[in-house]
Amino acid sequence: MSPIELNKRQDTILQIVKENGPITGEQIAERLNLTRATLRPDLAILTMAGFLDARPRVGYFYSGKKTMTTASESMMNLKVGDFQSLPVVVAENMTVYDAIVQLFLEDVGTLFVVDEKSHLQGVLSRKDLLRTSIGTQELTKIPVHIIMSRMPNIVYCKKSDSLIGAAKKLIDRQVDSLPVVNETENGLEIVGRLTKTSVTKAFISLAETHDL
Amino acid sequence: MSPIELNKRQDTILQIVKENGPITGEQIAERLNLTRATLRPDLAILTMAGFLDARPRVGYFYSGKKTMTTASESMMNLKVGDFQSLPVVVAENMTVYDAIVQLFLEDVGTLFVVDEKSHLQGVLSRKDLLRTSIGTQELTKIPVHIIMSRMPNIVYCKKSDSLIGAAKKLIDRQVDSLPVVNETENGLEIVGRLTKTSVTKAFISLAETHDL
Repeated sequence: MSPIELNKRQDTILQIVKENGPITGEQIAERLNLTRATLRPDLAILTMAGFLDARPRVGYFYSGKKTMTTASESMMNLKVGDFQSLPVVVAENMTVYDAIVQLFLEDVGTLFVVDEKSHLQGVLSRKDLLRTSIGTQELTKIPVHIIMSRMPNIVYCKKSDSLIGAAKKLIDRQVDSLPVVNETENGLEIVGRLTKTSVTKAFISLAETHDL
Repeated sequence: MSPIELNKRQDTILQIVKENGPITGEQIAERLNLTRATLRPDLAILTMAGFLDARPRVGYFYSGKKTMTTASESMMNLKVGDFQSLPVVVAENMTVYDAIVQLFLEDVGTLFVVDEKSHLQGVLSRKDLLRTSIGTQELTKIPVHIIMSRMPNIVYCKKSDSLIGAAKKLIDRQVDSLPVVNETENGLEIVGRLTKTSVTKAFISLAETHDL
């Protein structure tokens, strides 16, 4: 990784191309009161570094710094559907004790609670379960619908949502996991689970993809 | 001359440094009525993106945006120290019950256990606490050192480690949180906490900085 330092003239050229491109080398030289030959090294460097693109018979144009936009475009284009994992659902009348066992069996941090039509009714986090487990001895009797978070307090996302948007929901709403849903007339069908783990994995794969 | 869009706070910081640089992070924080810790991610990103340069014992100064760094280079250069949060520690002989209460009071997902010399001895995750809470009625009697994870099973990182490296540890070792430590002759001093939340926040701020 070598950060490139532009000299003053290169900076000026960049500015000219940005405002007037496509523009020929001749025209740039004219604006600077310099010869085309004098500018040649600067134009070569700017083109090699990816600041400028050159097309024969057209001229130079500003590339928008391709190397940077590629990675950042990738970031903005990442979709929830590409990083979601499988949801783990339990029924509303399952006991808290059984839900905790389920959490360990499936090795997840959050359970989604569904009704008999498989529509989303609630969310159970480790904190919800832990809070209940120290508050009562009746874990094998209390059904999860008593302690779960319900609408409108459930934050969810869709497969086609941007990963960044979903990541913001995780942070802003202080949750570890979002159900990924299809909105239907009859309710929310759960199709996935998006967690801080999903986002962390995306962060790693993005860094590795664009590793130079 | 840059396709990078900064958020409002980053813009303000840039303005302050332009007008007053070289200026220390402390001094910038003072002007904004914010803590140095709050500013750390913004300063890291502005430096990585090439807007600011930093010199030890001197401070930040405006670089004129002459360096070219890609988003992926920025990503590789992010350090744990810029995104870590405050650690929450408990003593080895604290009861499991009190530890759970502490977890809720501090609103964290992981507690670090220290000996009387404040050196890292163990880690308590929500899952450790939940497992214990359904396995026994004696939560108010069992000390945490009985159930905590111990060396060599504790994964940790240092302030100067790359954020990507730490993120990989979180994923590979399937933990939610890493203690950030100073390695000393006598043991590991805990100086921070790096979580999947930290990584998710970094991901968001990186995407926003490089947003077009």
